[in-house]
Amino acid sequence: MTDTRQMLDASPARIPVELGEVTAAIDACFNCVQACAACADSDLIEEDVGELRECIALCLTCADLCDTTARVLSRPGRWDHLVVRPLLEACVRACTTCADECDRHAKHHRHCAICAEACRTCLQACGTLLDAEQGQQ
Amino acid sequence: MTDTRQMLDASPARIPVELGEVTAAIDACFNCVQACAACADSDLIEEDVGELRECIALCLTCADLCDTTARVLSRPGRWDHLVVRPLLEACVRACTTCADECDRHAKHHRHCAICAEACRTCLQACGTLLDAEQGQQ
Amino acid sequence: MTDTRQMLDASPARIPVELGEVTAAIDACFNCVQACAACADSDLIEEDVGELRECIALCLTCADLCDTTARVLSRPGRWDHLVVRPLLEACVRACTTCADECDRHAKHHRHCAICAEACRTCLQACGTLLDAEQGQQ
Amino acid sequence: MTDTRQMLDASPARIPVELGEVTAAIDACFNCVQACAACADSDLIEEDVGELRECIALCLTCADLCDTTARVLSRPGRWDHLVVRPLLEACVRACTTCADECDRHAKHHRHCAICAEACRTCLQACGTLLDAEQGQQ
Repeated sequence: MTDTRQMLDASPARIPVELGEVTAAIDACFNCVQACAACADSDLIEEDVGELRECIALCLTCADLCDTTARVLSRPGRWDHLVVRPLLEACVRACTTCADECDRHAKHHRHCAICAEACRTCLQACGTLLDAEQGQQ
Repeated sequence: MTDTRQMLDASPARIPVELGEVTAAIDACFNCVQACAACADSDLIEEDVGELRECIALCLTCADLCDTTARVLSRPGRWDHLVVRPLLEACVRACTTCADECDRHAKHHRHCAICAEACRTCLQACGTLLDAEQGQQ
Repeated sequence: MTDTRQMLDASPARIPVELGEVTAAIDACFNCVQACAACADSDLIEEDVGELRECIALCLTCADLCDTTARVLSRPGRWDHLVVRPLLEACVRACTTCADECDRHAKHHRHCAICAEACRTCLQACGTLLDAEQGQQ
Repeated sequence: MTDTRQMLDASPARIPVELGEVTAAIDACFNCVQACAACADSDLIEEDVGELRECIALCLTCADLCDTTARVLSRPGRWDHLVVRPLLEACVRACTTCADECDRHAKHHRHCAICAEACRTCLQACGTLLDAEQGQQ
């Protein structure tokens, strides 16, 4: 259990989207940073590392995007649609390609299977928030 | 619930410390990144922002250190005591000063109370891992 | 002088935009991370910190976005238009609002004046790259 | 040319070490983030990726540590020896092992040669600052 929801509840900011949706996106993003960092690290030890290049590269980008997305969403004080939307778009895209590639290796490598799942949870949470965001203003 | 433990279990790396301890440290670190980012953001909206400068500054450093600590611990493939130890030391110190400062404002600002708690959980988890680390090699 | 251009020249990747433009964007982004981190830190010491809340908040978001943009652009091996474009958009927006706010304080605080300039250089470099990007595919 | 020195000059903080040394460390750190991110990305495209696993893994850790070190040094307002010292130690160690590994591949891969050099410049700048730091207090 994280403190994310409590922190958002305690914020004096006026947050223009549902707190439950922001919470889900933040938690899914940090979980995805961890999964992608760990998956790339595991890939680098596997015998078939040559088959996993794409997976490693996509994990690195996905981890960085999820990290920044989680941090920006954690600072809702000056919620700027014109920052949040494209950032969520980039994050959803990075999660999607990473999930697809991890899926290709899921049978052989359990870390890829778990990581694919973490990416999908994250892209869904960020996609839901993006939809809510686009309904605003 | 995060996938941290599962990702560590699935890693082909030989990890020289207990997985439960690494898991606790990683999860506490990411939770602390969120709490510190959110606390600083909330501080910036409060009327008494002038009293909260120290809190904001310490939150920023704590967030960055916890973020990097979580990422490095999530990549246990080449566990280097000489990187992990000082990084944990720096992280524990940042969490300690941030928790102490947040505590000073905990009565007035609920976000500071939650953040102080998140920092303490993190410094304990990282301190436990640091002790285990120092017992190695 | 940075090694950015040399690193891009040495990459075996097929990079779909001009290397000079990528180099300029990466270098401007890292410079902007530094300026924004330092500006927020300085703001927190100033007597008129109450007037600088917006500046601090925008600097934090700008620093995070520039950091991730610089890292993603530094990994051109799997250049994904659908990640790069929205990320550049978010980065340009964050730099623009941060530059505008820093400008408001530029007469009183030299760190705001320098930071505003760093943000403008960055938004121009990223904007140029975004234009080049959108001319692709 | 970066704005690092100017930003430090403009800071109202009392910085307990020489500004020239902090500037050198910050600039070398950001340059090293770029070089390490780019080197790992290039490694992932090379035919002999199997030989480069260690290089990739060390580059990832080095990039993260240099990034956080640069950010923390860019916020000198609350300079805490007990954070700065271990962080610099961890950073110097990560740069050292990454430089050594990149050197092993320097003849075959120009990106490794440049990255090794960037790591050495960074470890020297951070080492100098660490020495100055330890002379304090």
